[in-house]
Amino acid sequence: MSRGRLLICFSRMDPVPWVAELQRLLPALDVEVWSPGAEAADYAIVWLPPQQFFDEQGERLRTVFNAGAGVDALLRLNLPSGLQVVRLEDAGMSVQMAEYVCHEVIHYFREFAHYEAAQRRGEWAVRPLRARQEFPVGILGLGVLGERVARAVSIFDFPTLGWSRSAKQIDGVRTFSGEAGLVPFLKASRVLVNMLPLTSSTRGLLNRQTLSQLQPGGIVINVARGDHLVEADLLALLSEGHLEAATLDVFSQEPLPANHAFWRHPQIRMTPHVSAATQRSVSIEQIAAKLLDVMAGRQVGGVVDVVRGY
Amino acid sequence: MSRGRLLICFSRMDPVPWVAELQRLLPALDVEVWSPGAEAADYAIVWLPPQQFFDEQGERLRTVFNAGAGVDALLRLNLPSGLQVVRLEDAGMSVQMAEYVCHEVIHYFREFAHYEAAQRRGEWAVRPLRARQEFPVGILGLGVLGERVARAVSIFDFPTLGWSRSAKQIDGVRTFSGEAGLVPFLKASRVLVNMLPLTSSTRGLLNRQTLSQLQPGGIVINVARGDHLVEADLLALLSEGHLEAATLDVFSQEPLPANHAFWRHPQIRMTPHVSAATQRSVSIEQIAAKLLDVMAGRQVGGVVDVVRGY
Repeated sequence: MSRGRLLICFSRMDPVPWVAELQRLLPALDVEVWSPGAEAADYAIVWLPPQQFFDEQGERLRTVFNAGAGVDALLRLNLPSGLQVVRLEDAGMSVQMAEYVCHEVIHYFREFAHYEAAQRRGEWAVRPLRARQEFPVGILGLGVLGERVARAVSIFDFPTLGWSRSAKQIDGVRTFSGEAGLVPFLKASRVLVNMLPLTSSTRGLLNRQTLSQLQPGGIVINVARGDHLVEADLLALLSEGHLEAATLDVFSQEPLPANHAFWRHPQIRMTPHVSAATQRSVSIEQIAAKLLDVMAGRQVGGVVDVVRGY
Repeated sequence: MSRGRLLICFSRMDPVPWVAELQRLLPALDVEVWSPGAEAADYAIVWLPPQQFFDEQGERLRTVFNAGAGVDALLRLNLPSGLQVVRLEDAGMSVQMAEYVCHEVIHYFREFAHYEAAQRRGEWAVRPLRARQEFPVGILGLGVLGERVARAVSIFDFPTLGWSRSAKQIDGVRTFSGEAGLVPFLKASRVLVNMLPLTSSTRGLLNRQTLSQLQPGGIVINVARGDHLVEADLLALLSEGHLEAATLDVFSQEPLPANHAFWRHPQIRMTPHVSAATQRSVSIEQIAAKLLDVMAGRQVGGVVDVVRGY
């Protein structure tokens, strides 16, 4: 019987350190970096692979592991029918998301921008504390990452709300679900943290109609995908004054073009898609463990519903 | 039998809103704002009172409530012997301390200053994530506020350490105690968060000798009192490179003088003594509840050991 075969196909990420470590963890498999024309494999680990990769695999490829949590780019490819798609879960990302989001929520609530400017001016300028009850924080998307973010926000006693497609219960978090729950959720939130997967039904979900439902002085924190947000609508609501500020880590086009209005917008804080990075060692260990489960016919977490899109 | 009498004596804080609310909560007492020459009282609530206040009270005054957590200024006065001193506990401050400290820890760990500067330059500049295991956070002082801060820091998976005068145990926090524990605690910390009370034995505790024990790239966050810190030693260690940065909310002289080196120091972030403000309604409710306990002869929390100093 021939040995199983595992291919690694990455764009914008170095596959070399993965090979030795995976070969060590999975001695029963032959682990190789993909190159065009390579022999097809049983399993693959991919990050932003080209269509050619899947075109070459044919029937043999059974399971593909996405080396990240978001599978939106992967699912835009033409995948072999019946292919099992498994994505990373957490892998060190949830704590990073939690700290990034808490940092931004506290930044606005405690008016750190005011204090940074006052220091630059050499001015001792105390601001009255904002009312915590008037700073409800709504988390859009309650997957592994969203739930951890909601829990972290709630320990600072902000009224914490969450919305998910199907109903969820989280201690200390007021949860809403489904299409009917969206507007009540938005109306009860002042800060909106977007943590949704990008699918055909969530693309452009942060638009004038939804964002104008937020409480006055609304704040948008987008740590999911740039295409969730209609950028022109955000800019209009900021200039009209209904929204107070936005923190954006993701953009429709990355890197953000040099002439984009976001760079120098006084109400926008931005970071270059760094809110949560997968950690290589954690990712490798998780994928190796899932792969052993798949090979043994056991159930694994993180299996993607390719129709639903996440 | 004459009615009990409660005087309010505040500097830099308006007593008027306190009177009506306390009178409502304590109908058995006559509540009044102190003015020089007023009749002595059984109980008092004070914030930075003048010596004259205590000189006029004589034997009648039994318990004084400090409308804040720090009693260092109060204990520098000449107080009637046998006077019971009670300070505020928490009163909305611990959550503020927790969010202020977490904001600063995350600010440094996630290099938000780099990203703010990169945005101003219009530059998409990703930094590699710092290693969390190399970012141990030590909390100096594990009272009500310090314990809440330690718990909050630990939920972000930073190695979390704590030091207190007498031994304490807190889940998820590596604790040290007493004089013998101080150097091991400092050597194991990279970020030092000062939350000690100011007493004769903690004045000047943050000095060259102690701060140089911190791990390389050390960061000092002072949210207690300015006089804990030897300012010249901090400036020297920053310029020598052993310390990376400091966040200071409190200063030996407040407001900080206009010509002070801290204002424009590139490694110092500062705020004007705002890390935690008492909340009036919570403070009033807490003091009224404690006062009812004192009047009924029950034990109360927050009684100050005037010799120890906190």
